[in-house]
Amino acid sequence: MYLRCITCQKEYQPEPHRYVCDTCDNLHGTLEVVYDYDQIHLERNFSKHGSIFQFEKLLPTTSHTVVDALVGGTPLLKFENKLNRKQLLIKNDGMSFSGSYKDRASIIAINRAIEEKNEHIFCASTGNAASSLALLNAHTHMKTSIFVPKKIPKGKLAQLMAAGADVKLIDASYDEVFDLSLAIGLKNNWYTRHSAINPYLLEGKKTGAFEIIVQNDYIVPDYCFVAVGDGTIISGICKGFEEFHKLKLIDRLPIIIGVQAKGSNTLKKVFDQGPPFEPMDEIVSTVADSISVGNPRDVIKACTYLSRVGGRMIDVSDEAILNSIVLLASETGVFSEPAGAAAVAGYLSIQNEIPEDQSVCLIITGNGLKDTDAISDLKKPEIYTKEEIQAFYKEGRNES
Amino acid sequence: MYLRCITCQKEYQPEPHRYVCDTCDNLHGTLEVVYDYDQIHLERNFSKHGSIFQFEKLLPTTSHTVVDALVGGTPLLKFENKLNRKQLLIKNDGMSFSGSYKDRASIIAINRAIEEKNEHIFCASTGNAASSLALLNAHTHMKTSIFVPKKIPKGKLAQLMAAGADVKLIDASYDEVFDLSLAIGLKNNWYTRHSAINPYLLEGKKTGAFEIIVQNDYIVPDYCFVAVGDGTIISGICKGFEEFHKLKLIDRLPIIIGVQAKGSNTLKKVFDQGPPFEPMDEIVSTVADSISVGNPRDVIKACTYLSRVGGRMIDVSDEAILNSIVLLASETGVFSEPAGAAAVAGYLSIQNEIPEDQSVCLIITGNGLKDTDAISDLKKPEIYTKEEIQAFYKEGRNES
Repeated sequence: MYLRCITCQKEYQPEPHRYVCDTCDNLHGTLEVVYDYDQIHLERNFSKHGSIFQFEKLLPTTSHTVVDALVGGTPLLKFENKLNRKQLLIKNDGMSFSGSYKDRASIIAINRAIEEKNEHIFCASTGNAASSLALLNAHTHMKTSIFVPKKIPKGKLAQLMAAGADVKLIDASYDEVFDLSLAIGLKNNWYTRHSAINPYLLEGKKTGAFEIIVQNDYIVPDYCFVAVGDGTIISGICKGFEEFHKLKLIDRLPIIIGVQAKGSNTLKKVFDQGPPFEPMDEIVSTVADSISVGNPRDVIKACTYLSRVGGRMIDVSDEAILNSIVLLASETGVFSEPAGAAAVAGYLSIQNEIPEDQSVCLIITGNGLKDTDAISDLKKPEIYTKEEIQAFYKEGRNES
Repeated sequence: MYLRCITCQKEYQPEPHRYVCDTCDNLHGTLEVVYDYDQIHLERNFSKHGSIFQFEKLLPTTSHTVVDALVGGTPLLKFENKLNRKQLLIKNDGMSFSGSYKDRASIIAINRAIEEKNEHIFCASTGNAASSLALLNAHTHMKTSIFVPKKIPKGKLAQLMAAGADVKLIDASYDEVFDLSLAIGLKNNWYTRHSAINPYLLEGKKTGAFEIIVQNDYIVPDYCFVAVGDGTIISGICKGFEEFHKLKLIDRLPIIIGVQAKGSNTLKKVFDQGPPFEPMDEIVSTVADSISVGNPRDVIKACTYLSRVGGRMIDVSDEAILNSIVLLASETGVFSEPAGAAAVAGYLSIQNEIPEDQSVCLIITGNGLKDTDAISDLKKPEIYTKEEIQAFYKEGRNES
């Protein structure tokens, strides 16, 4: 295993504190983890319920904590004739340990940090990466420092406070918090769990793709929709499918569609301009906090990989995202946070382009319980007194 | 399989709309599900990740929906030297589909309701049973009606609204809502998912005990702590361990401790008065909404079973419950709602009575994301400007 710069292709050994390329800047110089694929032989015998560590030959860490077994193996729900689709698959990472897809990356960071003998780990986050890191790291000897925008949803903040992490709320955008915290943490020699800067995070995030294949009996879904913020998850999804293809566990790739909010679609803009993918920095806003990112850190990897697999980027309105939360929950029972529902809204927006016999997989990246304000504003129930509720049903309006 | 009155022992066939005993009242006449144990032979070969339906020989339904596979198989975490205990087990039902232990009962009710050809299912709930029913039932043809006290925590309400259930918030206590809704629903001939009234719910709830044994390699924990409200979960836990004992899968029972909040300890009072267990109806109040129950509906079963297995009831303060949320999360990463943390507080309150080499299992019945207000009030983070956060770390206070 070695590391390779996504832009200049320079190679590096996976040594402690090697994060980015020496000659490129932080955005251009993010590193890829490369394995000696010729030496890796895998069979189609993975467990449908196993943790991500069943894929250890394709992971960058050998260390293990007692919570490793809790990461991965989230359910793949299989519905027929739901959301106008004959076969609908839902990868539900809302049922993960901390309630988001970010657990897959956090556990890799924690194990690498332990291997490299760190005492302190830190991250900037819109919320999910932070709560995932704080909860999964709670039982280890390492201290956790968290930097988040003050607009973090209540659920995610509650997780952070309960976990006993050192939490700093900052009156700034996620993009600003990212830069500020990175400077502070690296100066103090803490181990970083920052998207893209730490090349190993993507290795955890690719395991969602592995599991979709394993849990679908090695049948490749025709389409795969995933929300996009910093670009690390979609990069991971692309890399996961590509690695399984390279290792002959599957014979084709799904069509991968990245979905952003219209108010925060920087990565889509960069992708649509085509190569060479030039990073942008914008001021953005969306109800889906997890993908509210104006300076996506993994933009070059995401655009490079997505372009290579023949995928595309689309964007959807905040209104469509919120409506999709309700539609998804009322049709399937899966309650998603806004970012996860963006994948649903994306699918709905282009469903007519997809032949009806083709299967669709939606990746739900976070639990709706993480951020309930959005839904509370959307749908308000009526309150009844005891007398009113009795009268309501006596009057024969019982099928309201 | 047949049904038997917990008080007069009269037997009934499991026919549609048979809920309680004809000759006893609703509290005294709750029914037990009895199997022909002589005809059931089980081996120690259950899956650690399987759904509750792997125990189908001990379940009262054979029908199946596509979400059955999502219920059960929640992780049993195994820690060494945490919370002052050499071996600490945590059964984490916060990672279930809807985020609470109630999924185990809801899926049984849904399958029975389908078998009995119902079009409409309903329940009164402090919140978790309702959100569990609404989400698990969302994909079926049956309509869901939900009656909850208006004080329901935001997370649980958001789940209900997203699921598209018919939700009625009532300005009344849980106990009042229970009686009101039961009258309304039965009059309309809807299928009921009400604690204790529906004898099959307990059959789902007992599966937590089965899984603790299976996931702990058929080694019986010495102690098992669980929060108590209506009394159905603890009845289920007792019945689960007893059935595995009867079927020779284990050779002894754990010591089972039921934990209530001091402000809502009706079931403890009835238990402590000893047999014959006479139901009580009190006005109660606790921060742990899921166990805020003044007229526990499964009180006779709970006291009878707990007494038979040699268990006991204890109670803890709201302050201890809130502190236990933080202690549990910061030591293990498991973020519990207040009711779940009551089990932790209960253990901590009597830990000195438990020999240090004895293992303890804590059953966490709900995810902390369900009710974040409690923790938000307890721990508030400071907010920094960009300048303040830079100054904070420049001044060498980086190890705050």
